[in-house]
Amino acid sequence: MTVIGLISPGQMGASLGAAASHSATRVIWAGDGRSKASHTRASDAGLENGGTIDRLVKDSDIILSVCPPHDAEDVAQQVQQRAFPGLFVDCNAIAPEKSRQIAERFGYQNFVDGGIVGGPAWKSESGTRLYLSGDRSKEIAALFDNSPLETTIIPGEIGAASAMKMVFAAYTKGTTALLAAILGVAEKEGVRNVLESQWGQTFTEQTYQRVVANSAKAWRFEGEMQEIAATFENAGLPGGFHTAAAAVFERLAQFKDEPAVDIVELLKALNQSRH
Amino acid sequence: MTVIGLISPGQMGASLGAAASHSATRVIWAGDGRSKASHTRASDAGLENGGTIDRLVKDSDIILSVCPPHDAEDVAQQVQQRAFPGLFVDCNAIAPEKSRQIAERFGYQNFVDGGIVGGPAWKSESGTRLYLSGDRSKEIAALFDNSPLETTIIPGEIGAASAMKMVFAAYTKGTTALLAAILGVAEKEGVRNVLESQWGQTFTEQTYQRVVANSAKAWRFEGEMQEIAATFENAGLPGGFHTAAAAVFERLAQFKDEPAVDIVELLKALNQSRH
Repeated sequence: MTVIGLISPGQMGASLGAAASHSATRVIWAGDGRSKASHTRASDAGLENGGTIDRLVKDSDIILSVCPPHDAEDVAQQVQQRAFPGLFVDCNAIAPEKSRQIAERFGYQNFVDGGIVGGPAWKSESGTRLYLSGDRSKEIAALFDNSPLETTIIPGEIGAASAMKMVFAAYTKGTTALLAAILGVAEKEGVRNVLESQWGQTFTEQTYQRVVANSAKAWRFEGEMQEIAATFENAGLPGGFHTAAAAVFERLAQFKDEPAVDIVELLKALNQSRH
Repeated sequence: MTVIGLISPGQMGASLGAAASHSATRVIWAGDGRSKASHTRASDAGLENGGTIDRLVKDSDIILSVCPPHDAEDVAQQVQQRAFPGLFVDCNAIAPEKSRQIAERFGYQNFVDGGIVGGPAWKSESGTRLYLSGDRSKEIAALFDNSPLETTIIPGEIGAASAMKMVFAAYTKGTTALLAAILGVAEKEGVRNVLESQWGQTFTEQTYQRVVANSAKAWRFEGEMQEIAATFENAGLPGGFHTAAAAVFERLAQFKDEPAVDIVELLKALNQSRH
């Protein structure tokens, strides 16, 4: 029976762990010293507490790294320092160059590059997709057969799955940040009501809902925007769209535990926290 | 009879001139030394050739400046240097601060700030709207009564109409540039076909059409993006979205006279001209 080590069971990670749990696999996580909320989420997802990180690295055949982008290198380092001999899969929203750097730690034959598009994969209707690149992608795709998580293997070198994640999120999250900034400028210049009229009710309401709904996730989007900016620069295109998006999300990071109640509160925070 | 001087009758300017031509007004332009194409466009729009710029300034009660953003200050300077005593209207896509600087040249009581949303105003169905701000906005709005050009006066200080134009174009043109850059990165990283699948056929086709269709206008969008970046920075928000957009449009400026035939040609130009 294949043992999968999951680092770590956040909302997305827990859903991937659950999707990989079936008769032929056990999914474990390192629960020692973690919060009650994490334990509840992990056990609800059917994951086993494998104890410490030392133990998890020792017991796992495959390790899935699912974490905020700014933690991806640290997670890889922790696993590699413990001389993990298995297959390491980075599923995070990081630049393809960073994924290749991590691959070099483990050796390309012990690494698969992943990128997730969509929300947590609890149901097939979510349409969540894990892109994979690297020679051993098929082994990882097979873990999710008959699960709510769709997989697509991208032929070509390691980094392609991360590149795909970057270019996709570049639009969805990039435009969310852009719209927040536009509304901040409109508010400051006293023309937000005029812009609303020009946009029309439908677009205005959709925009307000989208910007407000994303406020609770802004704290982890900042790092993702920096990864996208690095991806653009490395491809010879301007990174400024997403360094600006990172700055916008940074100003909204205060909404991590308590999302903005409405657009007025959000714009107040955005316009007050000038650097 | 009110005489309106128009600088200058490009596609947008000619349509504004035509919209302002009725029984109570004459619209003139400075045709001396201008190209045959300009003369044809102006006479098709029913504008009179008023001769030189000296003569135009002397004969006009009102001057409408409609030009690429990077020429706006130069046009204002040319008119002001000739001691124009009438009402100067800047209709261009410039930052509100720049509009206020131009207002100071003429005196706030001799200046109206304008901003145009939409394409050339030949028909009411185009939905083109001229936003106006400043104490004498009503005089300008009246010129376009019963014409295909809609007008909206924004109460408040001079600069509000320009601010409105900036925040509106920040999304429409900003996202066109962002999509071009995303496709450039996807092409470079070998995942454009994967991105197409994830986007779906409709969004992909709309995106390609939009990016290609805008290539012929890229040369003048660069300056507009710089104005938007300045507007954002002045409001205390990051200008990077639009300095990046300016860099993208700059790389596409070669398509001024001959638009890109398709997305492949456009991405080739975008990815080759690295700075």
